[in-house]
Amino acid sequence: MKIAIVGFGNVGRAVAEVMLERRELFQKVDFEPKVVAVFERDGSWIDENGLKLQELLSKGTSSPSWVEGAAMAEERLADLDCDLIVEMTVTNIEDGEPGLTHIVEALNSGKDVVTSNKGPLVLAFPELMEIAEKKNRMLLYEATVGGAIPVFHVAREALLVNRIISITGILNGTSNYILTKMTDEKVSFNAALREAQEKGYAEADPTYDIEGIDAASKLVILANGILKTSKSIKDVRIEGITRITPEMTELAMEDGYLVKHIGYVDRNRIEVIPRLIPRSSPLAVGGTLNVISLKTDVAQDITLIGRGAGPRETSSAILGDILHINKIRKEN
Amino acid sequence: MKIAIVGFGNVGRAVAEVMLERRELFQKVDFEPKVVAVFERDGSWIDENGLKLQELLSKGTSSPSWVEGAAMAEERLADLDCDLIVEMTVTNIEDGEPGLTHIVEALNSGKDVVTSNKGPLVLAFPELMEIAEKKNRMLLYEATVGGAIPVFHVAREALLVNRIISITGILNGTSNYILTKMTDEKVSFNAALREAQEKGYAEADPTYDIEGIDAASKLVILANGILKTSKSIKDVRIEGITRITPEMTELAMEDGYLVKHIGYVDRNRIEVIPRLIPRSSPLAVGGTLNVISLKTDVAQDITLIGRGAGPRETSSAILGDILHINKIRKEN
Repeated sequence: MKIAIVGFGNVGRAVAEVMLERRELFQKVDFEPKVVAVFERDGSWIDENGLKLQELLSKGTSSPSWVEGAAMAEERLADLDCDLIVEMTVTNIEDGEPGLTHIVEALNSGKDVVTSNKGPLVLAFPELMEIAEKKNRMLLYEATVGGAIPVFHVAREALLVNRIISITGILNGTSNYILTKMTDEKVSFNAALREAQEKGYAEADPTYDIEGIDAASKLVILANGILKTSKSIKDVRIEGITRITPEMTELAMEDGYLVKHIGYVDRNRIEVIPRLIPRSSPLAVGGTLNVISLKTDVAQDITLIGRGAGPRETSSAILGDILHINKIRKEN
Repeated sequence: MKIAIVGFGNVGRAVAEVMLERRELFQKVDFEPKVVAVFERDGSWIDENGLKLQELLSKGTSSPSWVEGAAMAEERLADLDCDLIVEMTVTNIEDGEPGLTHIVEALNSGKDVVTSNKGPLVLAFPELMEIAEKKNRMLLYEATVGGAIPVFHVAREALLVNRIISITGILNGTSNYILTKMTDEKVSFNAALREAQEKGYAEADPTYDIEGIDAASKLVILANGILKTSKSIKDVRIEGITRITPEMTELAMEDGYLVKHIGYVDRNRIEVIPRLIPRSSPLAVGGTLNVISLKTDVAQDITLIGRGAGPRETSSAILGDILHINKIRKEN
């Protein structure tokens, strides 16, 4: 399988690293990856005979296959001779670019796509799926929600016989870390946020995390991907966690509850709001963990918990998608 | 796909019911089940043109296809013209029978097997897998551990790129219910057990549940199925929960811990013992819930929570396995 990687930040590098570690496994499952191109913002590495990932990881832009400036992904993807594009550029939920163009170009030119980029899916989920179907290509996006948690795989394959009625979850590790800190150490929202920033869990501008925009984006992808709705982020009722006080979390605790920032979607409702969750609930996970619970009509509730972020964790989801596509393409 | 059902108790009936409910889905995923035989302890329903499940469910032994006494599964399976056997007889971990004979006969006569029966897998996992491989047949057993939780599917497919390092879980809903009661209501072990019996969560003889035999059986299947060990129940260090007192659970609570009956397996250790679990841990689930956490080297910890028992819940796992085999057989 000829692969092009678009976006070579922390997640892209982790994908390359794990690919090097798992060569033995790949042989066993009949997966022969050949990375023919890696696109970065300011240039690219291209070799139609297959790039040496080890060299690329260690030498970076001093590797001989590096070409600066030229050969940007959006201009090259359509003509590139490859089977699958891994789109890992930074999420942009304003206009989805450059990821949206990359994915459209890739699908339209007959390539399968695996992405960790929420932007294009939040803005154009039905349109992208329509292109994929028309072109008979696959577009998988496990890494966009819940990091390493294989929720789309579970819903699509393992729980296939079930109707999924609703989805509830904690979809943002930063806001969960802040609420956990406030509860456990009775500190203010601002103190907890500062600590999250010091530890690298929150960005300098934490708006997307604490105001629920990131969680709402993921909820839209869950809704469209699993419940087959056609929601966009405008449809989500969003309330952030900035008004939560340590007094509230303490009061909740006294009655056996935790204040959690919960995403919820069913056929009638889609929202990300602070909610009281019983301490004994499977949803009551702490720290930076994410949790997603699927309410189904046969298996009842199935809940998945895992790391919602981290380059290596995210690469597990991306490589899971790639191996799934490889399996299907080998069979056909 | 021609299917024979062996064992038509609560789980078998739930499988038949969900099959009737999901006819539309089955068409969509190219699954055409034809149940040609249903075996019970004291007779069988057989029709090579396909049994009417609705009639069978409502009329039972007064259905015209019922033949009493004759045609026991162990004598008939080898010659039966069918593609897949669903083995759902009662677990027997003494000698695995009658399930063990059913599964061996089915595999040896070229049929795929899906089972909810722990006995044969606890006693003869490596041998059964060897027969399956030699005959190029599949033997799936999602329903044997954690009821509706699709842990084997997740480990085998979604987390394929990961090495799984260890497995930790609460694998028995009855003992979890008892420990939860003791913790929440400060009642004695015996009082909690009595309530579990009254609610139908514990059997008249609760030994297997409270002494950890049932959990150890499931742990052996997890170890062999996911970590590829060749363990049997004799290898498991087992300690039950009968010596836990409300004083212990209260003392643990004061320090933020819960007493849980935990199964654990890695390359060096396999045990089911009472352990202290931090209240905030994803493993700290209450009531009759089961939880299974996979420690992996790329995704880190992935935890699954769900109903560990119940006919309908278990049928989700069984039908998941059947649909998976159907997909693979259709492709080849």
